[in-house]
Amino acid sequence: MSAEKLSLEDFEPGRRFPLGPKLVLAEEIIEFASEFDPQPMHIDEAAGRASILGGLAASGWHTSAMLMRMMADSYIVNALCEGAPGIDVMEWRKPVLAGDRLQGQSLVLEARPMRSRPGMGIVKFRHELENQRGELVCVSENSVMIRMRPGSELSA
Amino acid sequence: MSAEKLSLEDFEPGRRFPLGPKLVLAEEIIEFASEFDPQPMHIDEAAGRASILGGLAASGWHTSAMLMRMMADSYIVNALCEGAPGIDVMEWRKPVLAGDRLQGQSLVLEARPMRSRPGMGIVKFRHELENQRGELVCVSENSVMIRMRPGSELSA
Repeated sequence: MSAEKLSLEDFEPGRRFPLGPKLVLAEEIIEFASEFDPQPMHIDEAAGRASILGGLAASGWHTSAMLMRMMADSYIVNALCEGAPGIDVMEWRKPVLAGDRLQGQSLVLEARPMRSRPGMGIVKFRHELENQRGELVCVSENSVMIRMRPGSELSA
Repeated sequence: MSAEKLSLEDFEPGRRFPLGPKLVLAEEIIEFASEFDPQPMHIDEAAGRASILGGLAASGWHTSAMLMRMMADSYIVNALCEGAPGIDVMEWRKPVLAGDRLQGQSLVLEARPMRSRPGMGIVKFRHELENQRGELVCVSENSVMIRMRPGSELSA
């Protein structure tokens, strides 16, 4: 099974992976925010409309988590992935409102073997999500640890 | 009610707000990951132990969401907060494992009125979370939009 999974060698710079589409439901916005970010504009429709966000709006942390799920479905769960050290860039460019449909892509910026962990590499991605009006709502960059193919000739 | 909430003027640089404590339960790790980051080390105890994380480990996106909840409980929900444009720094320094107890603080780095939005300011924070062994597990910086006190004399 592992042999068929994506390894470091599959993440050539310039390769793109599709993200979404993901329809963002009001119930999901409220459920996430009730647990993690209970500000009025994320849990109440009227408060959202009255805010500068203009409607019931997903917490940015929820948008980030939805991005992760889109990555997981597109390539992460199918890769020899060992986790990530953090997020380099996370920009919430526009509000994500109930009923929005998000989709986008992950672009491989860089992929290299790690000196500190034999057999492991780091892949740096740039992720972009647009809404149904083609507006860029989220831009992110992060690096992910991905194993090299067993017996690979790449070295750090 | 608003008059008693924290406004831009209350976020003096150098002021600290406590975060947590938050006990991280295995069920919460699995529930979050099942929805947003279904990688084996986040949803299965044995897979977590076999991974480089060393146990059932919270998704970094989950740790980030827990951080947001700790901020909400400490000061955000009690502030005239209008959202955030993104995350400047998010480092997942150590694994967050089931049973860990997280706590830390938010430090105000900078607070200034926004030129583009009268009556609104930007507060930049540095957040740190430690586990029960005093190990720094998460370091983050982000900026939050917070309203000035009505009639405030501060100007951009």
